[in-house]
Amino acid sequence: MPLIYPGDNLAEMLLASMQSARITLEDSDILVVTQKIVSKAEGRLVNLETVTPSKESLELANRSEKDPRLVELILRESNEVLRVRAGTIIVEHRLGFVCASAGIDHSNVHGTEGNSEYWVLLLPEDPDHSALEIRRKIKVATGNRIGVMIIDSHGRAWRQGTIGTAIGISGLPAVVDQRGWQDLFGYRLKITLVAAADELAAAASLVMGEAAEGIPAVHVRGFPYPLREGSLKELIRSKETDLFR
Amino acid sequence: MPLIYPGDNLAEMLLASMQSARITLEDSDILVVTQKIVSKAEGRLVNLETVTPSKESLELANRSEKDPRLVELILRESNEVLRVRAGTIIVEHRLGFVCASAGIDHSNVHGTEGNSEYWVLLLPEDPDHSALEIRRKIKVATGNRIGVMIIDSHGRAWRQGTIGTAIGISGLPAVVDQRGWQDLFGYRLKITLVAAADELAAAASLVMGEAAEGIPAVHVRGFPYPLREGSLKELIRSKETDLFR
Repeated sequence: MPLIYPGDNLAEMLLASMQSARITLEDSDILVVTQKIVSKAEGRLVNLETVTPSKESLELANRSEKDPRLVELILRESNEVLRVRAGTIIVEHRLGFVCASAGIDHSNVHGTEGNSEYWVLLLPEDPDHSALEIRRKIKVATGNRIGVMIIDSHGRAWRQGTIGTAIGISGLPAVVDQRGWQDLFGYRLKITLVAAADELAAAASLVMGEAAEGIPAVHVRGFPYPLREGSLKELIRSKETDLFR
Repeated sequence: MPLIYPGDNLAEMLLASMQSARITLEDSDILVVTQKIVSKAEGRLVNLETVTPSKESLELANRSEKDPRLVELILRESNEVLRVRAGTIIVEHRLGFVCASAGIDHSNVHGTEGNSEYWVLLLPEDPDHSALEIRRKIKVATGNRIGVMIIDSHGRAWRQGTIGTAIGISGLPAVVDQRGWQDLFGYRLKITLVAAADELAAAASLVMGEAAEGIPAVHVRGFPYPLREGSLKELIRSKETDLFR
């Protein structure tokens, strides 16, 4: 894939990239795309020099030892701040999931002008919709009914290290109901929900790598569950059922 | 793979299974094995009728609406109970990770005698060691230096659904250090830790499926990071740095 600039048509670029890799799309294939190129194409770059921190941001910047202008953006992109430590702000993103720094990224970000140190990249406005747009354009161009997923790298509670995680989904199940076991007395059927989209996100992330030379999109064939409409919402645990908020 | 019984030699059975699938192992391949067959081979089946719940277990069974004998096993397998709700007990397992019901499983469990409803399966005693044993035996049999990983399905804070997660590791990195970005002022180098083993666990879990007819082992070629000694410990976030305990 070439470098991505605001306004780029990602669907076209993904198709061109697959063509040069001699990949022919088939129905039920899935394209997994990193958030970074979607955000760049959607012009979600912000120059920190244009940001004026609020009083709340200045206070939180002090507690977190982060740039107040970055903190201002984090707050604008969040529903709620969950935890703060030096170097760390964990929030509920306005899209509903929990992540660090509202998913705002400095790495591999080059702005359109000025010092690249001051540019940061926000998550797509509506990643489910971004995925749907790519899917629709590919349907028009090729006739193929595929799934499209947008992923980011998330930290976890309890465990070290980040893993690829779904943040936008169109045309594939986010979670899959599996018939579970009956309990000891045979009367209560347990349901196992498998987060199939997150498993695929982690798999794609492994292939993509994290470094500057990373691969921004992965073509998937043989996803083991039937494709259907799906959305990020399926993966968000409600506050009420979340024992670790 | 055939059904697994206590005392079975998993390494031999995995090799036979690969042979019939015409897979020839190469150096740097990885075998990902589900916890269930490792636990079965290691005789980790327990008949609940042999378990006498303590007073503490009876009390916790009441709060969680679970079988007191199962609760007794959960407590024996745990360092600490973190959360309790009807139908749910979240613990720090004695192996250090956080999971529901100490990973004790009813599904697809058939005991050696009596009513199968009363048999449950504990996690392997030491999954890193179990992985090492399989790896050693395969090295002896084939000469190949491979990685072996044992996985289970874990729920997560914040997100719906389970994903495949590493619980035992030998011969591959659990986390991978990635050179990160310098901060806005260029003086602080951020380090990104990628939980490569968990990403691979999720990928393998997707291939395995969760249902009774699931595939118990996955052969991996092309893991993108160099193999080295690794262990579960790398993936466990210390209590002190865990903001969600």
